[in-house]
Amino acid sequence: MKIAGVIAEYNPFHNGHRYQIEQIKKELSDAPLIVAMSGNFLQRGEPACFDKWTRAGEALQNGADLVVEVPVAACMQPADRFAFGGVNALSSLGVTDLFFGAEHAEYDFKKYAELVADVHGDFKKYDQSYAASFQQAIAQKIGHSVDQPNDLLALSYAKQSLLMKDELELHPVQRIQAGYHDTTFGDNSKIASATAIRTSVASGARSQIDRVVPEATANDLKKSPFVSWNDFWPDLHYLLLSQSVNSLGKIYGMAEGIEYRLKDCAQKMPYDATFDEWIKLVKNKRFTYTRLSRLACSCLLGIKSDEIEAYNDNPYVRVLGFNERGRDVLHLAKKRDEIDIFAKVGQDDRKKRLELDYRAGKIYQLKNGCEQDLKRAPLRFY
Amino acid sequence: MKIAGVIAEYNPFHNGHRYQIEQIKKELSDAPLIVAMSGNFLQRGEPACFDKWTRAGEALQNGADLVVEVPVAACMQPADRFAFGGVNALSSLGVTDLFFGAEHAEYDFKKYAELVADVHGDFKKYDQSYAASFQQAIAQKIGHSVDQPNDLLALSYAKQSLLMKDELELHPVQRIQAGYHDTTFGDNSKIASATAIRTSVASGARSQIDRVVPEATANDLKKSPFVSWNDFWPDLHYLLLSQSVNSLGKIYGMAEGIEYRLKDCAQKMPYDATFDEWIKLVKNKRFTYTRLSRLACSCLLGIKSDEIEAYNDNPYVRVLGFNERGRDVLHLAKKRDEIDIFAKVGQDDRKKRLELDYRAGKIYQLKNGCEQDLKRAPLRFY
Repeated sequence: MKIAGVIAEYNPFHNGHRYQIEQIKKELSDAPLIVAMSGNFLQRGEPACFDKWTRAGEALQNGADLVVEVPVAACMQPADRFAFGGVNALSSLGVTDLFFGAEHAEYDFKKYAELVADVHGDFKKYDQSYAASFQQAIAQKIGHSVDQPNDLLALSYAKQSLLMKDELELHPVQRIQAGYHDTTFGDNSKIASATAIRTSVASGARSQIDRVVPEATANDLKKSPFVSWNDFWPDLHYLLLSQSVNSLGKIYGMAEGIEYRLKDCAQKMPYDATFDEWIKLVKNKRFTYTRLSRLACSCLLGIKSDEIEAYNDNPYVRVLGFNERGRDVLHLAKKRDEIDIFAKVGQDDRKKRLELDYRAGKIYQLKNGCEQDLKRAPLRFY
Repeated sequence: MKIAGVIAEYNPFHNGHRYQIEQIKKELSDAPLIVAMSGNFLQRGEPACFDKWTRAGEALQNGADLVVEVPVAACMQPADRFAFGGVNALSSLGVTDLFFGAEHAEYDFKKYAELVADVHGDFKKYDQSYAASFQQAIAQKIGHSVDQPNDLLALSYAKQSLLMKDELELHPVQRIQAGYHDTTFGDNSKIASATAIRTSVASGARSQIDRVVPEATANDLKKSPFVSWNDFWPDLHYLLLSQSVNSLGKIYGMAEGIEYRLKDCAQKMPYDATFDEWIKLVKNKRFTYTRLSRLACSCLLGIKSDEIEAYNDNPYVRVLGFNERGRDVLHLAKKRDEIDIFAKVGQDDRKKRLELDYRAGKIYQLKNGCEQDLKRAPLRFY
C-alpha cells in the first residue's frame, strides 16, 4: 500500500500548498496523505502565525488525511536534524512516498544525497556562516551550487531518507510562481508565498489575500489571532535582560559566546524596539538571521541541550487531526509500533516526555489565549 | 553635628511624608536630612509607581537634603535585613537621629529592641506564616502585641540601630489620619495613604489626588508613567512558564518547594489573568501575600542568593540627588569612608558590583522607557 507524506509548516496554508496536494493526489490517486507539520514554533525560528490546531484544520480541509505534529525539539534544530524529525516520523507511520517542494524539481535529489551524505561545513571558517561553508562543500561534490531554500531542505530530506529502514520514494514538486522569500503578490496570480501573505496581514493590507488562500484559511484570517515575533519580543527582551549570560549560555544552540552579544544588544535596545531591530544589531558574518532567529526561539522557550537529546534518542509524534482515511493509517501505524504516538497530553506526559511541548504551548497560549495541549483531542473530519 | 535620617519608599511622595519632614525640621531645625530610599522595586514586593529619580526629586522638592538609594538587594530581603540596609547606610553617612513613622509613637522602641534582640519566629510551625510566628514571639517578650506595619518596621530599625557603632537616637513620628492599608480617602482630609493614592490612580479617579499630595507629586502624576505589578505581570507570567522548577528553585527566598506552586498556578492562569489573581491562588497559611510578592519580585529580577550575600558582606549606597546642604553632608561622608558611595554607574560597575541594580533598572525601564542607571548623574537642587 502506498502512503504519501509531506513535511510542512503551513504558515499559513495557502493556494501553493493546495496545489502541491493536488499534484500528490494526481500522481498517487489512491494513497492517503500524511502531513508532518511543525507545531507552534517553526524551524525558520519564528512563532507560527496560527496555532497548530488551526493550521492542521486548514490542511485537513484541503486534502490531508492525517496531520501529526513534529515536536518542538525537532523544529528548533538545524535543517538536517529537523529533516530527521520529519522524515523519521513519516517513515515510522508507514509513508512510502515523500513529496516536497523544490525550486529545481529536475534535480536528482537521491543521487545528490548519496554524494553529500558525509559532507559537513567547516565550523572554523570564522569569516563566514556555517550555512555558507556547508553550501560550498556540497557544491564541490555535486558540481554546481544548491542554494535555494526548498532545494536545500529537499536535500536534507533525501539524506535522511537514505538512513531509513525502508527508503522513501522521492517526489520533488516544482514550486510555481512565487519565490520562498517573495514579500509581495504577483498581479492576478492565485499563488503567493507565505512570507508575502504574512507581510500583507501584518501591514493590515488584507484585501488581496482571499485570492491566494483557500476558504479555510480565509475564514481563519477573519476569526483567529494572527501571531508574530512582535508579540513575543517583549518576553524575549525581558528574558535577555533578566537572565545571566551564564544561564543564557546553557540554552540549546548557543555557541562561540554569542550569549554575550545577545544580552548586550538587548541592553542597548530602547524599550519600544522590535525583534527585527534587535536581531539586525546582533547579526554578523558568522551568525545568519535565520540561525539567530532559531536561537531566539530556543531562548524564548528555555530549551536545554538535554531536552533535544532526549527527543533525538527517543522521537515521537503527536496526532493533531485526521479523517476516516487518516484514522485507518493511524491504526496501521499503531500496529507497526515504530514510533510513540500521542493522541492526548496527559498530566504525566506534560511533566515528563512532553514537558517541552507543553511549555511551548503554554508560552504560545499567552498570545492567542487558546490552551494548546492539555485535554485537547485530535480534530476529527468525519 | 546633628544629621537627621529617614528610611522611605515614597510610593509616591504625599502630604503624610511632607508632614513627617516638617516634624523633623521642627525638632532638629538645623540638621540636614538624609533619606535612604528604596529604588525601583520595594520591600513590600512591588515595583515603584514612579522610578527612583522621579521619587527622589519629589523628596528633594519637599525638604530632603540628600537622597540615597538603598540597593535592590537590601529591598528584596525580609524586614530585619532591609532595616540593616537602610540603617547601616544612614549611620555610615553620618546620621545621628533616625526618624520613622509609627502607629504607636508612644512605644519605647529602644527598650523593645533590647528585649527582642535575639527573638526569631518559629519556621517549623507549618500551620502559620513565619511573620505570624515572629509576632507571637515578640508579644511574649514585650508583654503586648506589636502588629501594625509601621510599628514592626520601626522595631526592626531600632534593633539595627543597637548594632551600629554609634547608636542612633530614635524619633518615632505619630502616623496621623490615614492607616497604612487604607484604600480610600477621608473626607476633606489632606492626608491619605500611599495605597489609597495608588488605588485611586489605577482606577482612573484622579480628581481628589491633588489635595493629598504636594505640587511636585501632582506634576509627576501628570507627566510620568505610573507603573504597577499589572505592567510586569506578563513578564513574570512568561518567566514562570518558561523556566524549570529547578531554575526557579535557585531564586533568592525560595523555600519549602514553593517554586512548584508558583509555576503550577501560573500554568493554570488564563492568558489575560492579573498578578493579583495569580498570587491569591498561590497564597496559603505559610506564605503571606507580602512574602509572595517579594518572592515574585526576586523571580522577576532573577535574584540569586549569592547576589544578596555579596551585598550583605559589602553594602553600598547610590546617590540619587542633593541640594547644597546635602552636598556638604556627602563630602563629610566621603571623608568618614564607612561605606562605598556611588555617584554614577560606570561600564565596569554595571558588570560587577552594581550588576543587580543595573539589571533591575533595565527591567524597570521596559515599562517607563527611561534609562535608570548608566550615565545618569545625581539630581542637583541648587
